[in-house]
Amino acid sequence: MSNVRTIEVNQSIFAANDHLADDIRGRLRENHTFLMNVMASPGAGKSSVLLRTIDMLKDRLKIGVMEADIDATVDAEKMLAAGVRSIQIHTGGECAMNASMTKQALDEFRTDDLDLLFLENIGNLVCPAEEDVGSSMNMEILSIPEGDDKPLKYPLMFQVTQVVLINKIDTRDYFNFDDKAVVERIHRLNPDSKIFFVSAKTGEGFEAWTKWLLEQVETWNEN
Amino acid sequence: MSNVRTIEVNQSIFAANDHLADDIRGRLRENHTFLMNVMASPGAGKSSVLLRTIDMLKDRLKIGVMEADIDATVDAEKMLAAGVRSIQIHTGGECAMNASMTKQALDEFRTDDLDLLFLENIGNLVCPAEEDVGSSMNMEILSIPEGDDKPLKYPLMFQVTQVVLINKIDTRDYFNFDDKAVVERIHRLNPDSKIFFVSAKTGEGFEAWTKWLLEQVETWNEN
Repeated sequence: MSNVRTIEVNQSIFAANDHLADDIRGRLRENHTFLMNVMASPGAGKSSVLLRTIDMLKDRLKIGVMEADIDATVDAEKMLAAGVRSIQIHTGGECAMNASMTKQALDEFRTDDLDLLFLENIGNLVCPAEEDVGSSMNMEILSIPEGDDKPLKYPLMFQVTQVVLINKIDTRDYFNFDDKAVVERIHRLNPDSKIFFVSAKTGEGFEAWTKWLLEQVETWNEN
Repeated sequence: MSNVRTIEVNQSIFAANDHLADDIRGRLRENHTFLMNVMASPGAGKSSVLLRTIDMLKDRLKIGVMEADIDATVDAEKMLAAGVRSIQIHTGGECAMNASMTKQALDEFRTDDLDLLFLENIGNLVCPAEEDVGSSMNMEILSIPEGDDKPLKYPLMFQVTQVVLINKIDTRDYFNFDDKAVVERIHRLNPDSKIFFVSAKTGEGFEAWTKWLLEQVETWNEN
């Protein structure tokens, strides 16, 4: 590192929305609804992972999806086409959901009867990591084509997520991606992080992931 | 679209840094330095594209790179290892460079003798699109694995960029990516946008791209 000149630009941008986030969590807990905040880069496969996950768990759980986007309704259209209860949220240019926007969405989209509610956050590894949306759990989907160095570049994302899905493992032959290195880098940032290697395309790894997720939802909803 | 419920959350986040950006542009023009603001999702291949571009143009132009990251110095290390003059900028959590940070970086990293200076912005399709950094030109690198729907989801990025590189075309067989659709979507947002299909891995498409870039730099620096 010694020969790299580095400039630190210090600016605080962390929003003080933690109180509202706790209110949301309390309300969801009362209703026995588990809110999973899904974060990833653009194109990492958030919608595809959710569609397959929902398909595998739909006989066990009542599931809904809130799609957050700057613009467009393509993901919500996909969810509706698959028969998934969903709503589109437009963030008005904001690069991440926050607790206030989540509350607006929950008020609009009645979710009291749901066991599991996914929030598909804006595709971005920076801003979403900084905002507590009141979720029961945070997850990150990292795809093989993005590379194994992402935990080095976006450490906060991997610190605030309890589970990481490494997606698109069916494309492994086409990219240099070091499984061992990525697991080490993630665990250095969060030793308790659960990691699954999956392919939303082929379904590989989804048995283990959905079994684990079902346990989390059941445990959370029992308390 | 009619059956998708959509919530509009209106919040303005556009920073008023345009005056400073114009100052930067003026100063760079005086010094005959072309500043290219490089934007992309995490893992789209920004560093790899830059390394190959620089290698192909290094006998024609004096080139430098400013690497913006939340954390880490991996990209600046790569540039130095390749013998490229570079500096690392840490944005202190900010999800994009702005004019003020760019000015700090330019003051620190003396660039008066450079013909071409790349700013590798934070990996993100949202915030960087909103900030004028004082660049001569903005470019976006979209990689095949991310999917052809990105212009629909992140329209502002494609409105503010004058050139789009579609990278990783060597992986085309492994992803459903509609070339014609993506070109149409980009041109609907910006009819003048120049689009190149390239592979930083194999070098495909780089002759046309670097030839075009050289022309832009020479034209700009002559004026």
